[in-house]
Amino acid sequence: MTRILITGPSGFIGTHCLQQLLRRSGDFHAVSRTGKGDSQAGITWHACDLRNAAQAVALVAEVRPSLLLHAAWIATPGVYASTPENIEWMQATTAMAVAFGANGGTRFVGIGTSAEYDPGEQGCIEDETPIRPSTVYGKCKAATWLAIQAAAQHYGFAAAWARLFLPYGPGDSPHRLIPSIVNSLIASMPVRTTEGLQKRDFIYAPDAAELIVKLLFSDEVGAFNVGTGVPSTVRYVIEHLAACCGKPDLVQFGAIKPASSEPPVLVADMTKVRERLGWSASTDLRRGLDRVLAGRLERLGGFEG
Amino acid sequence: MTRILITGPSGFIGTHCLQQLLRRSGDFHAVSRTGKGDSQAGITWHACDLRNAAQAVALVAEVRPSLLLHAAWIATPGVYASTPENIEWMQATTAMAVAFGANGGTRFVGIGTSAEYDPGEQGCIEDETPIRPSTVYGKCKAATWLAIQAAAQHYGFAAAWARLFLPYGPGDSPHRLIPSIVNSLIASMPVRTTEGLQKRDFIYAPDAAELIVKLLFSDEVGAFNVGTGVPSTVRYVIEHLAACCGKPDLVQFGAIKPASSEPPVLVADMTKVRERLGWSASTDLRRGLDRVLAGRLERLGGFEG
Repeated sequence: MTRILITGPSGFIGTHCLQQLLRRSGDFHAVSRTGKGDSQAGITWHACDLRNAAQAVALVAEVRPSLLLHAAWIATPGVYASTPENIEWMQATTAMAVAFGANGGTRFVGIGTSAEYDPGEQGCIEDETPIRPSTVYGKCKAATWLAIQAAAQHYGFAAAWARLFLPYGPGDSPHRLIPSIVNSLIASMPVRTTEGLQKRDFIYAPDAAELIVKLLFSDEVGAFNVGTGVPSTVRYVIEHLAACCGKPDLVQFGAIKPASSEPPVLVADMTKVRERLGWSASTDLRRGLDRVLAGRLERLGGFEG
Repeated sequence: MTRILITGPSGFIGTHCLQQLLRRSGDFHAVSRTGKGDSQAGITWHACDLRNAAQAVALVAEVRPSLLLHAAWIATPGVYASTPENIEWMQATTAMAVAFGANGGTRFVGIGTSAEYDPGEQGCIEDETPIRPSTVYGKCKAATWLAIQAAAQHYGFAAAWARLFLPYGPGDSPHRLIPSIVNSLIASMPVRTTEGLQKRDFIYAPDAAELIVKLLFSDEVGAFNVGTGVPSTVRYVIEHLAACCGKPDLVQFGAIKPASSEPPVLVADMTKVRERLGWSASTDLRRGLDRVLAGRLERLGGFEG
C-alpha cells in the first residue's frame, strides 16, 4: 500500500486535505507538533516540529513516504505575510525535499500561493504570469518551489506545486476576511471596510483540498493554480453576507483605504487544471458563503438577530 | 571605515573581485576554507566552510560586515550544473543573509547566473525575461535570490544580484571552454567541437569583477546582468584562437553534437546596467582572447609551435 505523509494536517487547508485523503486507500502518516490529531482510524501520527530542519529530515527518514503532501507553513492572519518564520519554513521544506529524495520518495506536492504572481487584469497563468512576489511570504514560497524542483531534478522524483488563491470555509480563522465579517454581522457590530472593488478568486476550502489531493494522486508535474477562475469583488462577498443576515446597514464601504500593495485583480486562470486534471470547482461563491453562514448559525443555535 | 566581507575570494570571479575591492578603501575581510589567501596588506582572512550553515552564520556574527559580497558557490566545470551541492549553497547562503540582516548589515550583493533565465533570441532583460532555469544550478541560484530578497525585506538591508554571463580570462579553469581550446591548440592536439553556432555573451573576468564591485558600492537594488551585451558565436572564439596560433586545421567543427538543453542564444541586455550604473565592458572579445593567449604563451616561455 502506498505510504503517504501529510504535513500540516491540522491547519485550515490541511484538515480538508486529510479528509480528502481518507477517501482514498493508502498507508496514511500525518505529522503535528504534539503527535496528536484527528483520531479517525487509519492514520499514524508523528510528533515533529517541522521548522526544525533536523527534525523534519529525521521524520522523513523514519517514515520514508512515497507521496508527500506538504501543507504545513506559517499561516497566522496578520502575521504570515511578513514574518521571517517564512524563511525558516523555506529552509526546512528544502531540507525535507532533499531527505524525501534521498529516502526514495516518488512524488512531492507542496502548497504555493497566488502571492507568488505579479498579477495583471487577466487571470494568472501558471507558466506565463511573471513570478514577482511582493511579500516575504510570496518570496519564500516561490523560492521553495524552485528548491523543490532542484531536489526533484537531482533525485528523480516528481514534484507539483498547488498555488492556492483565497480559500474560505469550515475551519477558517476568525481573523480572516469572511469569518470576521460574519461574526461582526451576527454580533450586530458595524463592518468597516474598503470600497471592496478588488477582484479575488475565492475558493471553498473543501474544493481546494479536492483539487490538491487529485494533483497528489495524478502524474502531473509543475505548478497548478488552486482557484475557481471566477473573479468576485470583496464587495459582493460582504453585500451577500449582509443581505443574508438582513443587516445591510451595518456595512460601511469606503471606511478603510485599501493597502497600496493590494493588486486590483488576483484571479486564477484554470485552463491548465481543466485540461490536465479535468477538474473544476463545484461550489460557487454564493453557495459557499451560504454554507459558511449556515454553519456559523448552527453552532450558535440559531440566528439571534 | 566600512567593513566589507567577501566570500569566495580565491575562486575565479572572486579573485578578480578582491583585486577590484583593494582599489577602494575599506576594512576588508575575506573568507576561505583554510583562512589563508592573497597576502596583500589590508585583508583580514577568516577560516570557514561556508557550506556549513552554522559556520557561515557564526562568521557573519563575528565579522559583522556592513557590505557583503558573496562570490562563493560550487563552480567545478562538468559538475556545478547538476550537483546537489547547489542546494547546500542555497541553504547556507540563505542562512548567511539572515545572519547578515540580524547583525546590522546594510548591503548584500550576490552572484547570480544567466542560467536563471529562459532565454529567447533577444538579450535577457533583468526584470522581463522569464526566470525558468533548466539546471539544478540555475534553480538554486534563482531560489537564493528570492530568499535574499525575503531576508532583505524583513531586516531592511539593500540587496542586489549580479547575473553573470560567460566569464573568461586569467585564473579560468583549464577545463572550461576557452582555456581548454587554447591548451589543445598549443599542444597541437585536434579541437573537436560542435558547429559552434550558439551565441553567447563572453565577458572578460576583470571587467565582470569591475561591474560587480561597482554594484556593491552603488545604491542600486535588484538584479543586474554582468555581460557585454554583444552576442558572439562559439565558432568565432575558436576560429580566432586557432588563427592566432596559426593552426586552423586542428579545428573539427561539427565533430560533437550540441546538448539539446543548450539554448541557441544566451546574451545579456545591458540597458539597465548602462542606465543605472553608467557602466559598459571595456574589453572586447577579440582583445580579451588575445590577452588570454598572450598570458598563456608567456607562462610557457614563448610559443613552441
